[in-house]
Amino acid sequence: MALVVQKYGGTSVGSVERIRNVARRVAKSYDDGNDVVVIVSAMAGETNKLVALANEISEFPSEREYDVVVSTGEQVTIGLLAMALNAMGYKAKSYCGFQIPVITDSASSKARIEEIDDAKIREDLKNGTIIVVAGFQGIDRQGNITTLGRGGSDTSAVAVAAALKADVCEIFTDVDGVYSTDPRIVPEASKMERISYDEMLELASLGSKVLQIRSVEFAKKYGVVIHVRSSFNDNPGTLVRKEDADMETVLVSGISYNKDEAKISVLRVPDRPGIAAKIFSPLSRANITVDMIIQNVSHEGFTDLTFTVTKADLKKAMKIIQETANEIGASGVASDESVAKVSIVGAGMRSHSGVATKMFETLSQEGINIQMISTSEIKISCIVDSKYTELAVRVLHQAFGLGAKDVTFE
Amino acid sequence: MALVVQKYGGTSVGSVERIRNVARRVAKSYDDGNDVVVIVSAMAGETNKLVALANEISEFPSEREYDVVVSTGEQVTIGLLAMALNAMGYKAKSYCGFQIPVITDSASSKARIEEIDDAKIREDLKNGTIIVVAGFQGIDRQGNITTLGRGGSDTSAVAVAAALKADVCEIFTDVDGVYSTDPRIVPEASKMERISYDEMLELASLGSKVLQIRSVEFAKKYGVVIHVRSSFNDNPGTLVRKEDADMETVLVSGISYNKDEAKISVLRVPDRPGIAAKIFSPLSRANITVDMIIQNVSHEGFTDLTFTVTKADLKKAMKIIQETANEIGASGVASDESVAKVSIVGAGMRSHSGVATKMFETLSQEGINIQMISTSEIKISCIVDSKYTELAVRVLHQAFGLGAKDVTFE
Repeated sequence: MALVVQKYGGTSVGSVERIRNVARRVAKSYDDGNDVVVIVSAMAGETNKLVALANEISEFPSEREYDVVVSTGEQVTIGLLAMALNAMGYKAKSYCGFQIPVITDSASSKARIEEIDDAKIREDLKNGTIIVVAGFQGIDRQGNITTLGRGGSDTSAVAVAAALKADVCEIFTDVDGVYSTDPRIVPEASKMERISYDEMLELASLGSKVLQIRSVEFAKKYGVVIHVRSSFNDNPGTLVRKEDADMETVLVSGISYNKDEAKISVLRVPDRPGIAAKIFSPLSRANITVDMIIQNVSHEGFTDLTFTVTKADLKKAMKIIQETANEIGASGVASDESVAKVSIVGAGMRSHSGVATKMFETLSQEGINIQMISTSEIKISCIVDSKYTELAVRVLHQAFGLGAKDVTFE
Repeated sequence: MALVVQKYGGTSVGSVERIRNVARRVAKSYDDGNDVVVIVSAMAGETNKLVALANEISEFPSEREYDVVVSTGEQVTIGLLAMALNAMGYKAKSYCGFQIPVITDSASSKARIEEIDDAKIREDLKNGTIIVVAGFQGIDRQGNITTLGRGGSDTSAVAVAAALKADVCEIFTDVDGVYSTDPRIVPEASKMERISYDEMLELASLGSKVLQIRSVEFAKKYGVVIHVRSSFNDNPGTLVRKEDADMETVLVSGISYNKDEAKISVLRVPDRPGIAAKIFSPLSRANITVDMIIQNVSHEGFTDLTFTVTKADLKKAMKIIQETANEIGASGVASDESVAKVSIVGAGMRSHSGVATKMFETLSQEGINIQMISTSEIKISCIVDSKYTELAVRVLHQAFGLGAKDVTFE
């Protein structure tokens, strides 16, 4: 008998009929002899509807109240799923974040999980109850409702799995697993059987949209084995786990892209020590995540500083950065939303040179201009004009032979 | 400076624009120098939508989970209203039932408030914060989410007003106050300036739909003055408060009706002691409220027993009563949904005879058959065929001179 944590996303619970399907799948795992804890998202579309209501009330809604509103989506789903299981004759019980409790810090709409009390869940599991937990939400130590940010249900699931020392955390989604790239762009993209936490981290953060990045960090930290699989069939998906020796034999395992970034340039910044801190401190205080940062060598004591943020944060970031630009005596601020980030990722990259060169040459052969570059041990990313996104992904997928050869590890 | 509790119903907060209107009204009361605590319902239509989802999942949804689902409607509204107030520059903070906490018993979907902790609210009021509380919901001592049943937000408002010893509890609704009868049926119905708790109790329980009956009981018990008024204008409404001497001078102050009842007859019940208890205990255990009960003298050791329940409870009640009927050896069970209750209410009725006779004569002159009769000190109710409802209300309103003379108390 295993302890299984299952997570179902918004599409998987997008209608009453789909919630019934999920109930059947959960019941099957229970009937197989497992203890089952289920984490669910809001029904597809519901969170967007709630966010739209909040934005209709105010352009910059109070963040505390924003979380009060948007956390209701998951609460509806847990009630409905527990009802469906009860109606099938199973003992099932729903839990909101505050009921467990899932204790988070107080960073509204981007809260981090600090502690999960597993006492009530263990008690219920002992008497044969299936547990249904609201993803995405928690409560801070002052009793305020918090949410973990978009995709936070994955993090909830992995955190619950870690707290319970579950045998596996199954993330059910609308895709079959993790692919070498987006199959909508490259039809011959192949599904991976296994992928390391680090590779998955790079792929997730770059917008593969299969797993939320924080959930993978959490899984890596606590050694939680994640199984990403489809909620619409019984095919095995992709295992995300500790790196194997044979994983390094693959040079590049995936190509990802992200159209959800926007570029901000601060122009003619006086090049003095402490300027970068002055620019980025107010952004981080406002909980805005900055992704790539480029600062070139200066001319005549001035330099341009360029960075990227998510499109959702652009308005807020521009408001802050315009004030900062005045303070530090920069000549102006410019932003560009028509950019995309294209990245190649692979654990094998560490031990091979020439991967970067091949990437740049491949893009250049298609006449795609590279606006910004950033690299990590197992990843190289380029910012390009967003209209070239699909083309860039296709030619890189082909150049690194991901379509031709089999990238599974058998 | 007064402490004012305001309650806005679903229609008053039915859209973003209306929530903004409510925010302006709340802000005005705050600007006038009052401490303001606001209780809100779910946006109009939302609770029905959530109930429909639950019923789609299961014909008899788990009651614990039902409350988890339907309580989200109010949570959305408190967040949006607090946001709107924040956006206008006011300090405002929302509270779910569990956050205050509003402690209830564990009767899911019909819970009763046992205790309200006013510490956090008082603390917030002290620093000038406007408090926005979710109506309709609470939490039991085991940490389960509960709801108070339809219209429960009125009860929440009065209970909060009682806990805070507020100066007045203003119930904003889509009507101008309490009328002598439903103006949709009798256009010349007149608005009352004042009404006693007891009269309001009879009117509310009979379906006037202005105030939930439990809220009036609560108000009576704790001496909370209720001001029922329109959320769409500034007209004074109707004060519900302790009875005045001059209230008794009015014989009949209102005519009410209720189409939300259904009649159940248990046929040929063996007339033994304890039979009534056998019939009604299982219903009360299932939290089904029985309204009128009629048992006639028996013939040859058998009698028929007839009672009414709300239409919403009919299916559940019939399921239970059919089992009971078998057990006690009754010949069968019949139900009828096409009935309505028409009632006349007045504190002055106590000291005058002939009121009942006048009611029965008036109905008989129109050929309306009376199926059941029940009386209290200040009320007489008749069950009639539902098709006669409007006719009965109209002729009674006229017979007791409510349209002709002025029923206000000046």
